[in-house]
Amino acid sequence: MLYLEDITVGQLFRSGRLRIDADRIKSFATEFDPQPFHLDESAARNSIFGGLAASGWHTAAVTMRLLVGSEFKPAGGIIGAGFDELRWPRPVHPGDELRVESEVLEVRPSKSRPNQGLVKLRTTTLNQDGEAVQVFIGNLVVPRRLS
Amino acid sequence: MLYLEDITVGQLFRSGRLRIDADRIKSFATEFDPQPFHLDESAARNSIFGGLAASGWHTAAVTMRLLVGSEFKPAGGIIGAGFDELRWPRPVHPGDELRVESEVLEVRPSKSRPNQGLVKLRTTTLNQDGEAVQVFIGNLVVPRRLS
Repeated sequence: MLYLEDITVGQLFRSGRLRIDADRIKSFATEFDPQPFHLDESAARNSIFGGLAASGWHTAAVTMRLLVGSEFKPAGGIIGAGFDELRWPRPVHPGDELRVESEVLEVRPSKSRPNQGLVKLRTTTLNQDGEAVQVFIGNLVVPRRLS
Repeated sequence: MLYLEDITVGQLFRSGRLRIDADRIKSFATEFDPQPFHLDESAARNSIFGGLAASGWHTAAVTMRLLVGSEFKPAGGIIGAGFDELRWPRPVHPGDELRVESEVLEVRPSKSRPNQGLVKLRTTTLNQDGEAVQVFIGNLVVPRRLS
């Protein structure tokens, strides 16, 4: 369990892998993002994605799952205070195997709350070819060690 | 179906409503964000959320669902090129009924791709008391009318 004092700029955390299949791409999209390029192979072929593509929100959710299971284990859990950036440079297709790499960009104690601080973390989600499919820079609330 | 030429700064788009229940909060979290405050009422009571709270990624996914069903219907679908901001100012609890309001902040034709442009949209997700539970500012790819 990591406290603010255990986290330093430049630290890297890695995750395991998760495979995304066509059925889950479609069922996630049916519930949350029902657009043809996330639901139907032939409609997707003629879209800007060039083939069935996961909703970006599906990729984001899978990224969270990978992050929760990764080496990055702050005391109190992974609690986002907001994001500076979120982008999907490349689509996720059925069969892609995703993993995340998180790098600490900034660590700062809170001025108003002496028992916690903020960690700015860049989490890159990579496919099996090492290509980034999502980049997000988030600010996480992390507790300080009680002294 | 809206083309870039139909969209102007200040336009507002509204959605219907979706109710979030405890079972879906827990099942979403089990798959994507398995942390105690998203899974278990008693663990959540002692967390910073003060009670069972939806994963922010669940709120984001529900927001997308509301947006896809809203008055905002760009030709070609809702395709995000990235986000400038995403934050969750307040937790979503079981029984909350969410809706979205989207406001156009910026409209600009693409320099490199004459057949499309970018629309910067602020989408605020509100609960039944009119309180913002999510704010995101996204840049969407929207086609131009072929002339």
